[in-house]
Amino acid sequence: MITIPYKVRCVCLKIEKVYLTGITQQLLDNDQLFKQAFDEVISSICSSVWPRGSNNFTANNSEKNINGVVPLKENCYIMLEEVYNWFREKPLDVLKIEKEKGGPIDVYKEFREGNALRRVGLEFETGNIGSGHRAMQKLILGINRQELDLAIILMPVKEFAYYLTDRITNYEELEPYFENAEGKPFIFIGFNADAYDSSVESIPKGKDGMSKRSVKKWGN
Amino acid sequence: MITIPYKVRCVCLKIEKVYLTGITQQLLDNDQLFKQAFDEVISSICSSVWPRGSNNFTANNSEKNINGVVPLKENCYIMLEEVYNWFREKPLDVLKIEKEKGGPIDVYKEFREGNALRRVGLEFETGNIGSGHRAMQKLILGINRQELDLAIILMPVKEFAYYLTDRITNYEELEPYFENAEGKPFIFIGFNADAYDSSVESIPKGKDGMSKRSVKKWGN
Repeated sequence: MITIPYKVRCVCLKIEKVYLTGITQQLLDNDQLFKQAFDEVISSICSSVWPRGSNNFTANNSEKNINGVVPLKENCYIMLEEVYNWFREKPLDVLKIEKEKGGPIDVYKEFREGNALRRVGLEFETGNIGSGHRAMQKLILGINRQELDLAIILMPVKEFAYYLTDRITNYEELEPYFENAEGKPFIFIGFNADAYDSSVESIPKGKDGMSKRSVKKWGN
Repeated sequence: MITIPYKVRCVCLKIEKVYLTGITQQLLDNDQLFKQAFDEVISSICSSVWPRGSNNFTANNSEKNINGVVPLKENCYIMLEEVYNWFREKPLDVLKIEKEKGGPIDVYKEFREGNALRRVGLEFETGNIGSGHRAMQKLILGINRQELDLAIILMPVKEFAYYLTDRITNYEELEPYFENAEGKPFIFIGFNADAYDSSVESIPKGKDGMSKRSVKKWGN
């Protein structure tokens, strides 16, 4: 049970808090594929800028819940899919085939080198705290059933969440339960805006203003 | 990972499904205090009758979501508190003192005999599936931190939930994740109405028609 501020170069959306379970620190230190997975996720979440065209991430803080979060998530997913070749909506066999219940993992990639295979599942949590607990349980189930070798949840920290969609899960709210993932390869990441300014435009809510694209689904 | 239909005498609200983690079956077979805790919970949930004054539990099934669930929970809690001396709202030290976040366990009792102490936490889940996941995580945290020796979650089965408050957690919906509690002393109980009849009165929603009472809080 340790909380480690992982040093990363991040000029835009900011990684403010990271919790690595004890076993995960060793995996990142000793396994190049796990390290690569982590770096790709950090790089993708950090790639967001606001307002569009600027070179950092400045969020409108003029009032509670003024910003949407979907464009942030989309941006992160586009980079994971298009730059790093991750896949969307990977079903777990235990849920889809055995139990015939429950949705897929949000984003997923299989890292290979020689005989080594590392299957990494990621959820960018934009639902309420209950949804955050479900995401955590789903990823733990995937690890326990040996369908995932590493799980990651991305969330805004509390300070940023205040200005995002109402009741979105924040890092600090789920944090008391992180230790339930101890003994498993699990990373929790809390991101924040780089700066706040009440005069910048707010981030659109829902899918407003986002261009349509085909997501790269697993198995297609 | 086993699902055992536990045979209990139950003439009213019906215990339809029970999941005991592997370790829990042994605890119930070999430890009188755990057995007593389980029997008190079963007896309390089974004590509900409907309509009031009848001798079984017949639920209105004339339309989806027509019945409330709070009176059922209240009835179960009254019996636990007043007949069996359980307490309400027991905070976990790990949440209240260490992390200063997160609410208490719904119902709690310490069973003692000689030097033996068995601390049992129970949640009667009436929120949505996200709330069900949170309850499960909270109880697992309490077990991991050695503040609880046995955890129990009560939920309606899917058939009954269809006629209860909209989106209430049902047993089958949370079931894929029960195995995340394997290795820990955990029991999941799914209850159902004894019979359905579209002509009986519906169960009031919220706290309508319920008499005020002081709950027996832990630590008061």
